[in-house]
Amino acid sequence: MPYVNIKITREGATADQKAALIRGVTELLRTTLNKNPATTVVVIDEVETDNWGIGGESVTVRRKRGS
Amino acid sequence: MPYVNIKITREGATADQKAALIRGVTELLRTTLNKNPATTVVVIDEVETDNWGIGGESVTVRRKRGS
Amino acid sequence: MPYVNIKITREGATADQKAALIRGVTELLRTTLNKNPATTVVVIDEVETDNWGIGGESVTVRRKRGS
Amino acid sequence: MPYVNIKITREGATADQKAALIRGVTELLRTTLNKNPATTVVVIDEVETDNWGIGGESVTVRRKRGS
Amino acid sequence: MPYVNIKITREGATADQKAALIRGVTELLRTTLNKNPATTVVVIDEVETDNWGIGGESVTVRRKRGS
Amino acid sequence: MPYVNIKITREGATADQKAALIRGVTELLRTTLNKNPATTVVVIDEVETDNWGIGGESVTVRRKRGS
Repeated sequence: MPYVNIKITREGATADQKAALIRGVTELLRTTLNKNPATTVVVIDEVETDNWGIGGESVTVRRKRGS
Repeated sequence: MPYVNIKITREGATADQKAALIRGVTELLRTTLNKNPATTVVVIDEVETDNWGIGGESVTVRRKRGS
Repeated sequence: MPYVNIKITREGATADQKAALIRGVTELLRTTLNKNPATTVVVIDEVETDNWGIGGESVTVRRKRGS
Repeated sequence: MPYVNIKITREGATADQKAALIRGVTELLRTTLNKNPATTVVVIDEVETDNWGIGGESVTVRRKRGS
Repeated sequence: MPYVNIKITREGATADQKAALIRGVTELLRTTLNKNPATTVVVIDEVETDNWGIGGESVTVRRKRGS
Repeated sequence: MPYVNIKITREGATADQKAALIRGVTELLRTTLNKNPATTVVVIDEVETDNWGIGGESVTVRRKRGS
């Protein structure tokens, strides 16, 4: 009955890509820790690039600089 | 001074329902653990059904199948 | 299929009190939003008072002062 | 390599203010704990006032009352 | 630069199993969303069974019943 | 009434350092966003190095290698 929260920047992930992420991480928990897929919960948060910081600056600023 | 985070799928919860949730969980912490309502914080996150997985698939897919 | 995370300071909550919290919040989600108790997940985090701050100081310091 | 999550009500914080928050908290972790800014991650969540509760009621209701 | 938080009950996961989880989820984010492994952060929380509830009761109680 | 969660590896942060972190981030929210310190909550989580991954491996492994 694991709970997984995945945070990514909101930059166009499709429903199919998110479905693959949900399927993959649920399967990973089954194979590595024998966790029951039926009660594995996955929540994906997509975060605006203005609201995500790394290295002391926002991803918006980094993307503009080409980082 | 508890902090409570409630995550639900975004499927039309009204402001009144969310107010009832805030009131109820704050009261529950008072009655079970004697926590001070004045400093009890509750944050509700409503998550798109594409971004919520259980059983290895998204809630969007489950809803379409009638689960 | 809600997910609830409750953070409280680690100050001696008993297993019975935590069970009451789990039962109460699960029931609250059923009555206010018609959520299925079978897939409602509740995780309680107990946090050391040195690691919890409010008003710019730790709960350890506040408790010593009698706040 | 710290991870910081800051939750505030969605009430018009600007990109500049959020950038200042990201810069400030990254710098604070460097000065207090010698954490490497390059791998310090900051995520800001802006939460609707209907979805934030304190004292058993939503911030929306409190703002209307002038609190 | 994703951030992943995995919560599981504390029931004896080994360092090797947790390393496999970290490796697997980092790789999954690379293959599904082209995320850079170098800045993918994974945090695993192991939660006491008294502090994890599902179906309105703690995992401790469920384990005793054989669920 | 912001809520801040800071996750760091458990590697000997002292109560004084954590108090400085609580004081600093509370003050930062006051100066950047005019947030009321009295209701600013800060929770620090210290995470075992086996349970923290970056670049696809645990911090335990990285520390051994001298990274």
